[in-house]
Amino acid sequence: MVKVAVVGASGYSGAELVRLLSGHPAIQLTRITSTRYVGQKICDLYTNLTGVCDLAFQAYDVQTAKQADVVFVALPHGKSMEVVPEITGDGRKVVDLSGDFRLPVDVYEQWYQNTHTAPDLIQQAVYGLPEINRAQISSASLVANPGCYPTSVILALAPAVQHRLIEPAVSVVSQSGISGAGRALKEAVHFCQADENLTAYKVGGVHQHIPEMELHLGDPPLKVTFVPILAPISRGIYSTVYANLKADIGSVELTDLYAEFYGNAPFVRVLPDGRYPEVKAVAGTNFCHLGLAVDSHTGQLIVLSALDNLGKGAAGQAIQNMNLILGLEETTGLMQTGLYP
Amino acid sequence: MVKVAVVGASGYSGAELVRLLSGHPAIQLTRITSTRYVGQKICDLYTNLTGVCDLAFQAYDVQTAKQADVVFVALPHGKSMEVVPEITGDGRKVVDLSGDFRLPVDVYEQWYQNTHTAPDLIQQAVYGLPEINRAQISSASLVANPGCYPTSVILALAPAVQHRLIEPAVSVVSQSGISGAGRALKEAVHFCQADENLTAYKVGGVHQHIPEMELHLGDPPLKVTFVPILAPISRGIYSTVYANLKADIGSVELTDLYAEFYGNAPFVRVLPDGRYPEVKAVAGTNFCHLGLAVDSHTGQLIVLSALDNLGKGAAGQAIQNMNLILGLEETTGLMQTGLYP
Amino acid sequence: MVKVAVVGASGYSGAELVRLLSGHPAIQLTRITSTRYVGQKICDLYTNLTGVCDLAFQAYDVQTAKQADVVFVALPHGKSMEVVPEITGDGRKVVDLSGDFRLPVDVYEQWYQNTHTAPDLIQQAVYGLPEINRAQISSASLVANPGCYPTSVILALAPAVQHRLIEPAVSVVSQSGISGAGRALKEAVHFCQADENLTAYKVGGVHQHIPEMELHLGDPPLKVTFVPILAPISRGIYSTVYANLKADIGSVELTDLYAEFYGNAPFVRVLPDGRYPEVKAVAGTNFCHLGLAVDSHTGQLIVLSALDNLGKGAAGQAIQNMNLILGLEETTGLMQTGLYP
Amino acid sequence: MVKVAVVGASGYSGAELVRLLSGHPAIQLTRITSTRYVGQKICDLYTNLTGVCDLAFQAYDVQTAKQADVVFVALPHGKSMEVVPEITGDGRKVVDLSGDFRLPVDVYEQWYQNTHTAPDLIQQAVYGLPEINRAQISSASLVANPGCYPTSVILALAPAVQHRLIEPAVSVVSQSGISGAGRALKEAVHFCQADENLTAYKVGGVHQHIPEMELHLGDPPLKVTFVPILAPISRGIYSTVYANLKADIGSVELTDLYAEFYGNAPFVRVLPDGRYPEVKAVAGTNFCHLGLAVDSHTGQLIVLSALDNLGKGAAGQAIQNMNLILGLEETTGLMQTGLYP
Repeated sequence: MVKVAVVGASGYSGAELVRLLSGHPAIQLTRITSTRYVGQKICDLYTNLTGVCDLAFQAYDVQTAKQADVVFVALPHGKSMEVVPEITGDGRKVVDLSGDFRLPVDVYEQWYQNTHTAPDLIQQAVYGLPEINRAQISSASLVANPGCYPTSVILALAPAVQHRLIEPAVSVVSQSGISGAGRALKEAVHFCQADENLTAYKVGGVHQHIPEMELHLGDPPLKVTFVPILAPISRGIYSTVYANLKADIGSVELTDLYAEFYGNAPFVRVLPDGRYPEVKAVAGTNFCHLGLAVDSHTGQLIVLSALDNLGKGAAGQAIQNMNLILGLEETTGLMQTGLYP
Repeated sequence: MVKVAVVGASGYSGAELVRLLSGHPAIQLTRITSTRYVGQKICDLYTNLTGVCDLAFQAYDVQTAKQADVVFVALPHGKSMEVVPEITGDGRKVVDLSGDFRLPVDVYEQWYQNTHTAPDLIQQAVYGLPEINRAQISSASLVANPGCYPTSVILALAPAVQHRLIEPAVSVVSQSGISGAGRALKEAVHFCQADENLTAYKVGGVHQHIPEMELHLGDPPLKVTFVPILAPISRGIYSTVYANLKADIGSVELTDLYAEFYGNAPFVRVLPDGRYPEVKAVAGTNFCHLGLAVDSHTGQLIVLSALDNLGKGAAGQAIQNMNLILGLEETTGLMQTGLYP
Repeated sequence: MVKVAVVGASGYSGAELVRLLSGHPAIQLTRITSTRYVGQKICDLYTNLTGVCDLAFQAYDVQTAKQADVVFVALPHGKSMEVVPEITGDGRKVVDLSGDFRLPVDVYEQWYQNTHTAPDLIQQAVYGLPEINRAQISSASLVANPGCYPTSVILALAPAVQHRLIEPAVSVVSQSGISGAGRALKEAVHFCQADENLTAYKVGGVHQHIPEMELHLGDPPLKVTFVPILAPISRGIYSTVYANLKADIGSVELTDLYAEFYGNAPFVRVLPDGRYPEVKAVAGTNFCHLGLAVDSHTGQLIVLSALDNLGKGAAGQAIQNMNLILGLEETTGLMQTGLYP
Repeated sequence: MVKVAVVGASGYSGAELVRLLSGHPAIQLTRITSTRYVGQKICDLYTNLTGVCDLAFQAYDVQTAKQADVVFVALPHGKSMEVVPEITGDGRKVVDLSGDFRLPVDVYEQWYQNTHTAPDLIQQAVYGLPEINRAQISSASLVANPGCYPTSVILALAPAVQHRLIEPAVSVVSQSGISGAGRALKEAVHFCQADENLTAYKVGGVHQHIPEMELHLGDPPLKVTFVPILAPISRGIYSTVYANLKADIGSVELTDLYAEFYGNAPFVRVLPDGRYPEVKAVAGTNFCHLGLAVDSHTGQLIVLSALDNLGKGAAGQAIQNMNLILGLEETTGLMQTGLYP
C-alpha cells in the first residue's frame, strides 16, 4: 500500500485532503502534521471526521516525512518552498498545493513580493492541471497544484484558446466561498461580516492568481482583468469569463467543441447549450461544470465555470494528480456526488 | 443483482434515495417514478446527479413497480397507503417513507386527520429504526421508515428510557432545515422568508410526529411537548431534549451508558462528555451525533441530537433498513463523510 | 397632506414602498391595492409592518386610485401599461416601477417581447434616475422608475461616460439577492435551491435591462455584455463593471472626478481610493456605494457598485423621485441607516 | 442638548448604540471610546455608518467621560466594574450593558467566577427592563441593562408569573444569531463554522444568564433549564419557553392576559392567538414579539419570543432606559421598522 503524508493538515485544504484520502482505496494515510495542533486528533477539529480518521497531528519532521511515498504539502505560500526541497528525491512524489512552484521565478517574486529560495525546483515542477497537462503530470516528481481561481478560469477558456477563437484580452469576475479565505481568523471571515454580504477584494490587477491564469492559458500569454468577490457560501468558485470572439461561431457549435475537448476529462462537464452551472451541484466534489453562451449583440464569448475551491480547486485536484503519478485510474477515490438540496 | 425502484423520486427524499442508491454496490436502481416529471431525467432536476444517474422518471404503474425486488415509496402521507397495498407480497420488500404505516390506525386517523384505507398493513409493518428494532426489520416485508423528528428524539432518549432514568414527561425543541418542508413551493420555503429567520410552526401539541415519538419510545408511552422551528439551513435536524432525571447520575456515567447502548449501532455516535453535536458534521451522512449533559441545578437530563433529515431522517435510514432486509452489512453504501467546512 | 396610493402593494417592491411611506413625514399613505389579498392587512403578510401600517389591501379601482395625489404603480411589466394611462392626468403624479415606460416603444417591444398598448405615454415619461435627470424629474407627471440593475450600472459609469474616459464596450457581472426574483413562488427562490448556491440566468445578451443600461448611459449608446447571477442574500445588487480606458488616468484622479460628479447626489457615496463597497452597508437603505480601480496591467477601468435592489433599485428611488416631484427635500424619509452586523 | 458618550464603542453593542444614537433627536453623541481603534473613524469599521457618524474613537479617559451627561458603558464583563465607579455621581446617568451590575454580589461571583470590585454599586443599580421596572428606571442613576437571553425569557414569562399561572420549573431553548458571540475573532464565529450549522454551547446549567432569568422573574426565584444554540443568522434571539400550567386556561384567554399586561409597553407585541413570532420581523428593531400556545395534551404553556439581541437585547433597550431616565417619550429614536424581505 502506498504511504501518504499530509504536511499542513489543519487548514481547510489539508483537512479536505484527509477527508478524501481516508476514503481512497489505493493508499494509506500514515501521517498528518500541524504546527499548532500537535497531539490533537484531527477529528476533534473537524468533527465530520469522527470515526473516519483517527490520526493525531504530529510536528513536521524531515525524516518522518520521508517515510511516505507521496507527500502532499498544504502549507501557506512561502512556507512550502522551505519544506519541498527537503523531501523531494529518492523517487518520492510531492504534490504542493501552495503557489510556490506554479510560476517562473521572476514572475513569482513580482506577484508574491517574496524572494524564492528554491528556484531550481520550479523548473522541475509540473503544473498540475490534468485536463491540459496529463502526460507531464504522470511522470512528474513534483506537481505544483493549481490555484482555485486559475483552475476555474483555465478550464473555462482552454478550448477557446487552443482553437484560436478569442482575442487575448479576457475579463473575469469570480465569486468565492469563504473557505477560500482559509481557516485563519480574520475580519473578512467573521460570520457577521460575510453573511448577507458581497465584497470585492484585491481589485485592480493585484491578485497573485492573475499571472497563473495568463501564463498557463496560452503562449503568448493572455491579458486577464480579474476581480474576486467573497460570497456568503462555504465552498465554491463561480467564474464569469468574457472574451471577444474572433470567429463567427454560435453557442451550439461552441458547446460541441468544448465537449469534444473535454471528452476524456472525467471531471469536466460541459453543460448542454442553454444550461448554466450552479455551485451547489459541484460543492463537495471534484467536478467542474461549464456553461457557454455567445452574446451576438456584443460579439462576446461568455463562459460560466463552477467548481469547489477545496475540491477541484485544491485537495480533489491534488489527489487527481496523485492518481496520475501513481498510474491509478484518474477518478479513484474522487467520485463523490454533491448534495442537493 | 437486486433490482430496486423508487416510487415518488422527484421530491427531496426520493432524490436523496436516488443519490445514495446510485452509489450502492449491491443493488441496481432500475426505475424511478414521478407524476409531474414523466420523461424528464432526474439529473435535469437535480444537477448534482449529472453523470451519476441517467434514469428518466416514469409514470407509476403497478406491474412495472412489481418488477423490482425492493420498492421504496417516497410519496406524501395519504398517497402511500394507496400504493403500498398493491405492491406488497410475492416476497417483494417495501420500505415506505411516509407516515402511513408508523402508528396504530386510531392514532393515525386522529393525528393525520385522514381515514386509513389499508389498516391491515399497519399490523404487518415494522417500525424501521434499526437501533431499537434491528431484528424485526431483518425479517420484515414492509418497513415503516421513521419520521425525521422522531428518529432524532427517539435516539436521544432510548437509552434513558430503557434504563428507567427519566420521568415520562419530556420537552423537545427541534430545529429543522428547510428541506424538511419539502420541494413543493410554498411561502415558508421562499429564500427571502427563510433566510436570516427562525420560525416555529405547528405549535401546541399538534405536530403529527408527536405520537410517533411517544409510542415508539416506551410502554407506557411518554408525554412529549414538542415545538419544531424552521432554521436557515438546507439540511439537518437539531433537537434539544429535556427530561427530569429520576436517578442520581452524572454526565460521565450517562455518556458511558449511552455509548454502551449504541455500541453496535454504526450510525449513532455518542460524543465524549462535554462535547455537543453540530449539524454540519452530519449533513449529507447517515450519522446521528448525540451529546449529553446533566443540569444539576434543575435535575434535568439534557440531550442534544443532530442528524440529516434527508439522511438518517429519511433516505439514509431507508437504505439502512434495506440493507438489513437483504442481509447486507448495515453500513453498505452509507459511509459518506460530511463536509467541513 | 399629500395623499399617496400604492397600486400592487403585495409584492416586494410594493411592500417596501409601504414600509418607507409609513415613515415619510410629508405624505399620507391612504390606499394600497392587491389582486390576491383583498381585505387582508399588509402587516399579516409582512410582519415587520405590525404596528407600522394598519392598512388592508383593496382591489384596484380607477376612481379610488384617482383620489390620490401621487400613485406608485408596482405592477409587473405589461400590467402597468394597462393601469397607468387610466390614472394619469388632472395634475396627478405617477411613479411607475415597471419596465413599461423606460424604453422607446420599438426597443421595448423587441426586448420585452410584448406589444405596447400605451406608446404615447412613453414620450411623456421621464426616466427617474435623479443623479442624471434631476431637473426633468422635478417637473414630470409620469416617472419611469429605473430597473435595479440599470441603476447600479449607470451610476457606476455615468461620470466616466460624461468625461469620455472609456470606450463604448462595457462588461458587467451583477449579483442580485433573491428578492430580485420577486415574491412569486418558483423553483429559483426555494431556499434549498438558492442557499449555498450561485447561479447565472438570462445569459447571452437576453436580459431586458440591457437596453435600459445602454440607452440611458450615453448617446451614442454603449454596448453592454451583461450576466446576472443569483446570490444567497435577501437584498442587494453588487455589480462589477469593466471598460477600456481611453485616457491615462489613475484611480485617485478618477475617484476625485467621481466624487465631484456626485457632489450634489446625497445617495451616491464614492468610497476613498482603495476601498470597495459591500452590499451589507447599503441593504435596507437608499444609498449606492461606488469603489474605483484602474488595472494598469490591462488598461481597464473597474467600478464596483453596491445598492439595495428594493431600496435605491426600486422603492427608495421611487420615493426619491416623488420627493423631487413634490418639491420636497430629496432625502425626506429616506435616510435609514443600514444594519451592521 | 444632552451630551452622550459611549465607552467601548467598537464592539457590536457599542456600534449599534452609535447607529441608534446618531439618529436620536434629543441627544448629541459627543464621544466614543475604544482601546484598539484610537484615532480611527467608526465608519471605517462599520461602513453602514458612512455619512451617518463621523466620530473617531478616543482612548477612554475619566475626565472626558465625565463631560457627558449620559454614559453608556459597553465593555466586557469584568471591565465595566472598573469604569462605572469612576464615572457615576454628579447627576451623571450611566447605563451599563455588561453583566456586572445585574445580580447580587454572591450570585455574580459564583456564576461569573470573578471577584466583584464594586459591590456597593450593585445595590444602587436598577435592573433596566422597562416592561417590569419602568418606575425605578426613571429615577435611576445607574441602570444595569439586561442580558439578551434574559430579556427574551423574562418578557415571555412575566405575565404568567405575575398571575401565578405556572409552576416554577421552566425549560428554555434559545437560538442566538452569531452577533451574540461578539465581534472578537474566535472559531465559533468563522463563517465556515457557523454557516449551515446549529451548535449548542454552555450546556448543563452553566450559562451566566441563568440566574438573571431566575432572580428577575419572581420571588421565590424560578428554576430555569437553559440551552443556548448558535444559529446561522447575524441578529436575533428566538426562545422557546415551556412551563407547566397550574391553571386551566386556554391560549385565547392567555393571549388576552398577556396583551393586557403589555398594554402600555410600546415595544412588546403579543401576537394574535395562533400566530408565532419570527426573528426577521424584529431584526434591526427594538421590538419583542411574543406568541402563545397551550399544549392541552401535556398541560404545558408554550411561549415563543423573538427579539434582536443587539436591539431590544442590548443597545435598543439601553436607549429605551436612557429615554426613561431623561423623561423623554420611551420610544424616542427607537421606532425603526424591520426589513422584510
